[in-house]
Amino acid sequence: MVISGKHAVKEAIKSGATIDKLMILTGTVDREHKEIIALAKNVGVKVMYVRKEILDKESPKNQGVVAYTSEFKYSTLDEIFAISEKKNEPPFIVVLDGITDVHNLGSVLRVAECAGVHGVIIPKHRAACVNETVMRISAGAAEHVAVARVTNINDAIKTLKEKNVWVYAAEANGGLIYKTDLKGAIAIVIGGEDTGVKHLTGKLCDGIISLPLFGEINSLNASVAAGAVLYEAVRQRTGN
Amino acid sequence: MVISGKHAVKEAIKSGATIDKLMILTGTVDREHKEIIALAKNVGVKVMYVRKEILDKESPKNQGVVAYTSEFKYSTLDEIFAISEKKNEPPFIVVLDGITDVHNLGSVLRVAECAGVHGVIIPKHRAACVNETVMRISAGAAEHVAVARVTNINDAIKTLKEKNVWVYAAEANGGLIYKTDLKGAIAIVIGGEDTGVKHLTGKLCDGIISLPLFGEINSLNASVAAGAVLYEAVRQRTGN
Repeated sequence: MVISGKHAVKEAIKSGATIDKLMILTGTVDREHKEIIALAKNVGVKVMYVRKEILDKESPKNQGVVAYTSEFKYSTLDEIFAISEKKNEPPFIVVLDGITDVHNLGSVLRVAECAGVHGVIIPKHRAACVNETVMRISAGAAEHVAVARVTNINDAIKTLKEKNVWVYAAEANGGLIYKTDLKGAIAIVIGGEDTGVKHLTGKLCDGIISLPLFGEINSLNASVAAGAVLYEAVRQRTGN
Repeated sequence: MVISGKHAVKEAIKSGATIDKLMILTGTVDREHKEIIALAKNVGVKVMYVRKEILDKESPKNQGVVAYTSEFKYSTLDEIFAISEKKNEPPFIVVLDGITDVHNLGSVLRVAECAGVHGVIIPKHRAACVNETVMRISAGAAEHVAVARVTNINDAIKTLKEKNVWVYAAEANGGLIYKTDLKGAIAIVIGGEDTGVKHLTGKLCDGIISLPLFGEINSLNASVAAGAVLYEAVRQRTGN
């Protein structure tokens, strides 16, 4: 996989991702480039200094740094539960029901990581997966948050429920999110850009939580909605 | 409206006209073309490189540059205050301090409209303006939320303060947002993608409000942060 941009590459190295090759723009090494070079040397990664054309061919928005890593390492549901146990916190999980836009997936992973989510569950089919663009958009967060990729989202939700996790769909026309107790073991299902949470999936959930809408436009962008919903959960979970 | 010729296009961009589309002759980019491309990028306008025949069809004396402008109707600060008065609510305003990415601007306008914000203030220079892409990304919300475009963001903040609006910068390392009273007349300043809220602007603000961050990545995407911050304000303002 190709990762580009200073922040994304730095985070990839820090997280311990396997870097196969690291290319830096020749001639113009700034402070952040130096930091990346030092990090790379630290883990035994050789740096190649190359011309702009070579970097641009790999990724147009490279900020002078391109790294090649081995495939993204997905987690299992069990590993997500292990993270929550290790942190001694009730499970705090995000389920993405068919996000197809890589920008949205990257943004959701970024905010999930910031909000301290233990893991994100995505479907294997008809949805965006963690690729180089997602990595860049996530500002490297994808390296630090567990992502499980499952064949069937509904089966995953059933498994969560068996493990006593309360599963909420974030959708319009549900219960007011501020009135819903999000302090315990929870999973929040965010729907795809066009479809929202699918009918069958919604029916499996324990409840629907909604942000109040005061405008003419009756829907929020998936990653922005995720931001608002996850941070309401954070408020409650931190006793505020 | 079609504007053609180096000088006219340059001035149109400089004057802050809304550029929907900018076409440059492919292959022969000179110094002035480069200047126009840089100006365009600065305000988030995408450049299309096209063949001579296409430009000539639009305008015979085009010097290799053709721009399409459309007038987005910006509001004034007074009009934003009038909206809050009409709704009989204390002012709820968003100030964008140098958002350059059109996707972020569109997403912020969309969530601002959903959250019932009375108006969004953006700078005339070195920032994205409301163009076709912003309109599309905002899912049409840009048509329903008042956007004021000001020459100087700091002067606008001073005006807000004179009108007894509490101005908060949404930044890292400030007071915990959940502990801050956001129920009254408020404006929330969201910083640009790379720069955050500028030093001088931050100093003008009455306080800094922060979302707690629990991950390795120490920053949120501007529009996602806006979503979380605005909906915390909504929670407080709706008595939840």
